[in-house]
Amino acid sequence: MSNQADDLYKLRHSTAHLLAYAVLKLFPGVKIAIGPVIEDGFYYDFDFSSADLSVLKKQGIETINDKVLEVIEAKMQQLKQGNYKITQDWISVEQARDIFKDQPYKLELIQEIQTGKRDDFGKKDKVSVYTMGEFIDLCKGPHLNSTDEIKVFKLTKIAGAYWKGDSSRQMLTRIYGTAFQSQKQLDEYLTLIEQAKERDHRHLGKQLDLFVFSDLVGPGLPLWTPKGTVIRTELDNFVWNLRRKYNYEKVEIPHLTKKALYEISGHWDKYKDDLFKIITREKNEYAIKPMNCPHHIQIFARKENSYRDLPQRYCNTTMVYRDEQSGELLGLSRVLCITQDDAHVFCRETQLEQEVDIIWNIVEEFYTTFNFQLEVRLSFSDPEKPDNYLGERSIWEKTEAQLKAIAEKKQLKHYTAYGEAAFYGPKIDFMLRDSLKREWQVATIQIDRNMPERFGLYCINEASEKEPIVMIHCAIMGSMERFISILLEHTAGKLPFWLSPVQINILPISEKQAEYSQEIEAELKKHNFRIFNNLKNQTLSEKIRNAELEKVPVCLILGQQEAENKTVTIRLRGGKQMKNIKLPEAIKKFKDLNRTKQYNLT
Amino acid sequence: MSNQADDLYKLRHSTAHLLAYAVLKLFPGVKIAIGPVIEDGFYYDFDFSSADLSVLKKQGIETINDKVLEVIEAKMQQLKQGNYKITQDWISVEQARDIFKDQPYKLELIQEIQTGKRDDFGKKDKVSVYTMGEFIDLCKGPHLNSTDEIKVFKLTKIAGAYWKGDSSRQMLTRIYGTAFQSQKQLDEYLTLIEQAKERDHRHLGKQLDLFVFSDLVGPGLPLWTPKGTVIRTELDNFVWNLRRKYNYEKVEIPHLTKKALYEISGHWDKYKDDLFKIITREKNEYAIKPMNCPHHIQIFARKENSYRDLPQRYCNTTMVYRDEQSGELLGLSRVLCITQDDAHVFCRETQLEQEVDIIWNIVEEFYTTFNFQLEVRLSFSDPEKPDNYLGERSIWEKTEAQLKAIAEKKQLKHYTAYGEAAFYGPKIDFMLRDSLKREWQVATIQIDRNMPERFGLYCINEASEKEPIVMIHCAIMGSMERFISILLEHTAGKLPFWLSPVQINILPISEKQAEYSQEIEAELKKHNFRIFNNLKNQTLSEKIRNAELEKVPVCLILGQQEAENKTVTIRLRGGKQMKNIKLPEAIKKFKDLNRTKQYNLT
Repeated sequence: MSNQADDLYKLRHSTAHLLAYAVLKLFPGVKIAIGPVIEDGFYYDFDFSSADLSVLKKQGIETINDKVLEVIEAKMQQLKQGNYKITQDWISVEQARDIFKDQPYKLELIQEIQTGKRDDFGKKDKVSVYTMGEFIDLCKGPHLNSTDEIKVFKLTKIAGAYWKGDSSRQMLTRIYGTAFQSQKQLDEYLTLIEQAKERDHRHLGKQLDLFVFSDLVGPGLPLWTPKGTVIRTELDNFVWNLRRKYNYEKVEIPHLTKKALYEISGHWDKYKDDLFKIITREKNEYAIKPMNCPHHIQIFARKENSYRDLPQRYCNTTMVYRDEQSGELLGLSRVLCITQDDAHVFCRETQLEQEVDIIWNIVEEFYTTFNFQLEVRLSFSDPEKPDNYLGERSIWEKTEAQLKAIAEKKQLKHYTAYGEAAFYGPKIDFMLRDSLKREWQVATIQIDRNMPERFGLYCINEASEKEPIVMIHCAIMGSMERFISILLEHTAGKLPFWLSPVQINILPISEKQAEYSQEIEAELKKHNFRIFNNLKNQTLSEKIRNAELEKVPVCLILGQQEAENKTVTIRLRGGKQMKNIKLPEAIKKFKDLNRTKQYNLT
Repeated sequence: MSNQADDLYKLRHSTAHLLAYAVLKLFPGVKIAIGPVIEDGFYYDFDFSSADLSVLKKQGIETINDKVLEVIEAKMQQLKQGNYKITQDWISVEQARDIFKDQPYKLELIQEIQTGKRDDFGKKDKVSVYTMGEFIDLCKGPHLNSTDEIKVFKLTKIAGAYWKGDSSRQMLTRIYGTAFQSQKQLDEYLTLIEQAKERDHRHLGKQLDLFVFSDLVGPGLPLWTPKGTVIRTELDNFVWNLRRKYNYEKVEIPHLTKKALYEISGHWDKYKDDLFKIITREKNEYAIKPMNCPHHIQIFARKENSYRDLPQRYCNTTMVYRDEQSGELLGLSRVLCITQDDAHVFCRETQLEQEVDIIWNIVEEFYTTFNFQLEVRLSFSDPEKPDNYLGERSIWEKTEAQLKAIAEKKQLKHYTAYGEAAFYGPKIDFMLRDSLKREWQVATIQIDRNMPERFGLYCINEASEKEPIVMIHCAIMGSMERFISILLEHTAGKLPFWLSPVQINILPISEKQAEYSQEIEAELKKHNFRIFNNLKNQTLSEKIRNAELEKVPVCLILGQQEAENKTVTIRLRGGKQMKNIKLPEAIKKFKDLNRTKQYNLT
């Protein structure tokens, strides 16, 4: 999110107020909730249940839908022309209650200020309000000075959202918009949005037949088709091969566990609402695992470990489950069932730096393979709030200094974010920017001395004493589902050769080349390439069009000449051709592609 | 289990009665429950809670424990000498109630006969009883003619068991025993039992550090260590490589599902008590999957399939969960969390035979790799009870004829078991006999027209009509946990080279060979062998002893001569040595071992 102080923030914040102003003018009786600035824009939540919608009926619009956005935009343009000053006042809660007496959501917020439940736009008996013409809103600011500073804006979509995100409360109407300093910036943004729609992984998942949701199985629980499972398997193998080089070892664990384990780890409290809980036939309380660390700890703790046994590096690609609200689920980005490429390193303090360095290398190697740009966020503790964190301040300082030193030796751009640490330790978070310029938090390295303490983990050191150990949590993809969604959108489904569910289409031009195509197919299959030999009754251009639609990276075109000369014509995704290639040469090229993990032949 | 009519059955059945007779004589007030014949012997359940145990106290035995077995055996020997006739009578339930008036468990059984809840030893108003001296028992027989026909017997162990297997009922004391026609047979049996104890997979699992149970995670939920996970991964890859040859494709599914899916499939009813059920935060009913077929069906049904798209062969190694009673859990043999190497083939009727043939080949190739002997049980419907099965009789007959024809073309010994079919279709069950002569049901091939009908599965055939399809359920290992337990006990932990968690120990004789050992280690690691270079301060014989204890298949001994000549001495598990081997030659041997999956070099 933008820095609250910057101009874009103010611009969007004032435009959000302008939106609410317009809606209040258009639809008397509408109830207004909240309207924050978000990444790329803003939204405002409204309750239209008792609003007068007659202005819409006059324009032939029956209900609140996308068409309403234009009506509201027009009203906003008109109000903007009023050149209203935007001014702040501090008023008493009594005054505020009077101003907002017909606005129940605002009254609830005022009540929360008064009882100390929130302090973002006021404290106990005083609240901050901003005025824009006839419109007044509870707000901490900052804002533009007047509506004529608002440049270009656009309302982008309409959606449902629960008041306070609580599914037991009122369903509101959320109107999204964005605002920029210039038309050019807005146009660029809208182009990106349009591209994003085409690249939407939900759309691509269907088009490429990668995954499917079933009403009978339930929302947020993707089923992976054969093609989608190829992608999962290849990604998992890639991460495993990177880790294997550094002596990581696979472990395996069940998805169920007794409550007792998560009580000790603290997850039972922390994930209270997000746990899928079970009462067994013998009336014991169990849960489906939301995390793997406590299980891996049980494996580590199966025996007494000498310092010679450390580090131990366990990795485990496995599904964890979180009971999310169905309204928050979205394609593969937000699911109930998350496949983590999870790993935990158990090591001595003296080994920490070396182990972090190893993970960093793995992360970098993984993401640069896809041409993703990474930045590193050092998520450190807030030195002004030492009470927010477990353990000795001196240990925090030492660990943070270690992490900073590692970051400085590396090529990646890094920055420090104080206050972003986990309560149990500082983190290194890897931030990725995709081809649509969106930022994602992906891999993470977390230093943890809290769980080892809760579970009493130690090693026997050179002096035959029990020495507390430290634990590193790390994931390369993090959520495999989310990573695949990012990768699909980043590449618009044009996956690299090694990762493509079907790598090669064989395209005999006519029936006469059928036999030759089967020779080629048999030879390629010996090398485990993923092949489709298109022997359908289609023209070559139809066959090519299908391959392009399915985003197959390589086609082998087999005509009369190729059959006679025992060659192939390679056609790359996009159209580039290479003629007169002998099959062994082609196979060598494809093997190189698998090995180097380049996107495609160049 | 033995055929009820055969001599061994009668012998053991009468010995079970002799056991109960002896217990009643020794411990006045004991309540007797049931005493069936089981594989390898018999048991009898007793309730000692109100019994007079003074006879034990006199012998210095404080409570019911293993020492009691000898006391009871002596009493049985004494009673046997009485040469009692064993005779059957049919009596009225009133008479029976009078006879067993002090035996509440027997009264409950009589009540069940009268109300029609059971009919195994009587019907409504008549029950069968057998008399042996002063002892009388509810029993359908058959029995020996008199106690002097009882030859040799032995009580083997004592355990707890709930009345009727119901954990809400009384915990009883179960006394196990066995009986044979001759002392020689008994001795052979006891030798096998002794071997089995040494080979117990729970013991080996700990010794070889393969898996572990944690009280915090819960019973029946094994955690797999790095070494155990190697075995899982290698087995899974082996099955996958066998399947891949036949164009099977991997799919992946979540472990959770809405109730709705299992209502349609029928599992909600069928597995009622065995399902782990969940109520989500939004108050929906979910379950953890006990089977994968309905999920795979949802993947198949994601689009309309042409006959050209068939067969589709989905495979998926994934965990299923059954909520079993904790008293029934046992090591890896009986767990809550079962890893299935599950597969489902969706095909046309005309493709059925071919597909069954493929699976049969995979099963045979898999099990012969381990030198397991397989027999095939054709589990067919009972023609006298057509109502027990879904669908047309003619289709059953056709399918059973197909399966029989396939079996007859194959090398494996097969037999038909009428009445062993699933309610939805006939099965081919593969029965394995291990080195301890125990029989296990392992792989299975099940023909299913029921689920396709419930879910309305079809393909569009050549006439553009909807044609119902058929489904084959098949697993090679079945439960990976159970297969590993069988394999460990069969091999006494001496796993084949390709499957051994550590394949090679490098044993430098002294520090002088440390450098040479590291050269060897680096070279072997390039080829992905699983290596341990024992650089510990131990003598060669200590190093060899450790390798033997950990059942490592190959050691490379490196002394002065080997270092000078750049050779290795190969020492195989068990002791055989091969001297003066160049490393490339050794590597070739090891690669061959991985490829051929032989147990070890010969």
